[in-house]
Amino acid sequence: MKKFYIAKARRLRGTPFSNRIENQGLTAYTTYNHMLLPAAFEGTEKEYFHLKEYVQVWDVAAERQVQIVGKDSGKLVQLMTCRNLSEAKVGRCYYAPLIDEQGKMINDPIILKLGKDKWWISLADSDVGLYAKGLASGSNLQAEVSEPDVNILAVQGPKSFKLMEKILGKKITELKFFGFDYFNFKGNKFFIARSGWSKQGGYEIYVENRNAGLNLYDELFSAGKEFKVKPGCPNLIERIENGLLSCGNDFDNGDNPFECGFEKYIDIKSDINFLGKKALIKISKEGIKRKLMGVKIDLNEIEMMEERPLQNGKSIVGHLRSAVYSPHFKKVVGIAMIKKEYWDKKTSFELEINGKKNQGSIYDLPLV
Amino acid sequence: MKKFYIAKARRLRGTPFSNRIENQGLTAYTTYNHMLLPAAFEGTEKEYFHLKEYVQVWDVAAERQVQIVGKDSGKLVQLMTCRNLSEAKVGRCYYAPLIDEQGKMINDPIILKLGKDKWWISLADSDVGLYAKGLASGSNLQAEVSEPDVNILAVQGPKSFKLMEKILGKKITELKFFGFDYFNFKGNKFFIARSGWSKQGGYEIYVENRNAGLNLYDELFSAGKEFKVKPGCPNLIERIENGLLSCGNDFDNGDNPFECGFEKYIDIKSDINFLGKKALIKISKEGIKRKLMGVKIDLNEIEMMEERPLQNGKSIVGHLRSAVYSPHFKKVVGIAMIKKEYWDKKTSFELEINGKKNQGSIYDLPLV
Repeated sequence: MKKFYIAKARRLRGTPFSNRIENQGLTAYTTYNHMLLPAAFEGTEKEYFHLKEYVQVWDVAAERQVQIVGKDSGKLVQLMTCRNLSEAKVGRCYYAPLIDEQGKMINDPIILKLGKDKWWISLADSDVGLYAKGLASGSNLQAEVSEPDVNILAVQGPKSFKLMEKILGKKITELKFFGFDYFNFKGNKFFIARSGWSKQGGYEIYVENRNAGLNLYDELFSAGKEFKVKPGCPNLIERIENGLLSCGNDFDNGDNPFECGFEKYIDIKSDINFLGKKALIKISKEGIKRKLMGVKIDLNEIEMMEERPLQNGKSIVGHLRSAVYSPHFKKVVGIAMIKKEYWDKKTSFELEINGKKNQGSIYDLPLV
Repeated sequence: MKKFYIAKARRLRGTPFSNRIENQGLTAYTTYNHMLLPAAFEGTEKEYFHLKEYVQVWDVAAERQVQIVGKDSGKLVQLMTCRNLSEAKVGRCYYAPLIDEQGKMINDPIILKLGKDKWWISLADSDVGLYAKGLASGSNLQAEVSEPDVNILAVQGPKSFKLMEKILGKKITELKFFGFDYFNFKGNKFFIARSGWSKQGGYEIYVENRNAGLNLYDELFSAGKEFKVKPGCPNLIERIENGLLSCGNDFDNGDNPFECGFEKYIDIKSDINFLGKKALIKISKEGIKRKLMGVKIDLNEIEMMEERPLQNGKSIVGHLRSAVYSPHFKKVVGIAMIKKEYWDKKTSFELEINGKKNQGSIYDLPLV
């Protein structure tokens, strides 16, 4: 597979940690919310094994925050998501599909309630701030939408708990999954959540002071030596095997949240008010005709630039959206939008690449 | 300067022409509107000289279209921009700053009026479709917002007129600047505008049929041999020298259109209705305190990942936002947001990089 460089520019903003990771062996970037996001150091496979055994520090500053404050902030946040947030508690994170008036996916952020009238939406890759601004202006809501200078460091992997305890004390180990609180490090307060885009456990540190963040970054590496800490990034193999969906890869504005398997985050029964509610009620009645499923394919490598059709003879079974070689399954694993006729039968399919047909099968998510 | 690879994924969509350009010597990509945009082939400097003398074909499919149709489409488009579109004509392009309720920049697209109730917004890099959806839903406007599968090929350079005439006939040479019309090639209709992101002249072909577009792409290269056609991309040197602004590089959501030099696209006097009008009236009365200017700096190379402070002794003169070495001026040229105290005096300044201070001066835009 040919490789290409990334051209740097202010438009694809660096993070407070870019210089650090570039000196720590970074080899590839991707972009996310108009920002650089590390994509590889030693290679996805090596990093996969390391992540599952030790601890990694990820520069995920590109996971930008949309801050919404004001009297109508809760109303505005609820307007954008089909998840019922009427009982949301201060100090908790809520994974929530954001949809448009047609009931189609716009983003799948973590929504954090910081105060009665203060919210952060911790974004996947789309300009939800613009959606919120348009809605607030159009609906005359008293809600101020902004992008604060918050830069997230994720600490992920089974040894993340020991490392964070060593630096921040016992209290951090008491944080419940999807809970957050403020913690002190050398006189600076850090907002930390027990969360992260892996299933290996860990934390996300919402760095609000750049210099303090750099000091903490360095401390994570010096204190982390005994736990074999390394720099890392969201791992494509780990996240596909575990069925962690990626906005823009696995789903886009053509898909609805039922098709993405988000049923438990959809409330069309209560009286909450959100855009697309009518559309979701209609979809719910009619039933969906396709959904995201796992796949395994007899291949040693694959590159994705657009979705790839999966065929059974002359019929289209579905479309592959994310895929990578898994050293665990010794095959390519992926996430695909599969048609209803095929999702139950666990039909086998063929994926044609450069004239060669490769066999594959359909599985439930997660794959592991 | 260290180089890093770009990690491919469906989230950064390929274009219909990605395979073509990768086989034609592409070396670097950038991303733009969640899509791959070519950034270098033989190198920015070589391409600069070629662009100014011959003709290039650019895969700028990443310049996505937001399509707005419906009874209230004109109202919705006008709500987003401070440019008066009340007299807009079908068949014409309008360069227009899009702003939010605070009067801050969101995008600087070309707006095309295709019919009484049909518009395309040909985007710089931000999700204006989400802004439009939010506004339409919030304001209960009858306007449908979508992203059609339109992929632009730009044909740029002084020989572009000869090349396009050879393929499409005499009529294409009669198209006025910022006019558009439909043209036939081998039985397929192509929407073509006389426009493009260079000052070397040329056209943008809005490809609506992928296969027909690939045929036209190949024809541009075979018919273009006599004009020394090459694949290319928006050229950083050419665009900075000519003062073509780049959204996300030169300005962002922290800047207003007066600061960007967009006065002639601002109408706060008529009775048109757009978001941010009150804010712009206030700014207009108070006057701006900084604006975008050209700069030249005694340097042989530069890399931009974030804005860089320009200093005069201990005072901040402004911030450098885009910059590149210009073989014409034999210096680094750039675009910077300069404070009022300095923009008239054409003060000299210093830019510190890795502890070394480099001298620079302020100029009007364009630099050439």
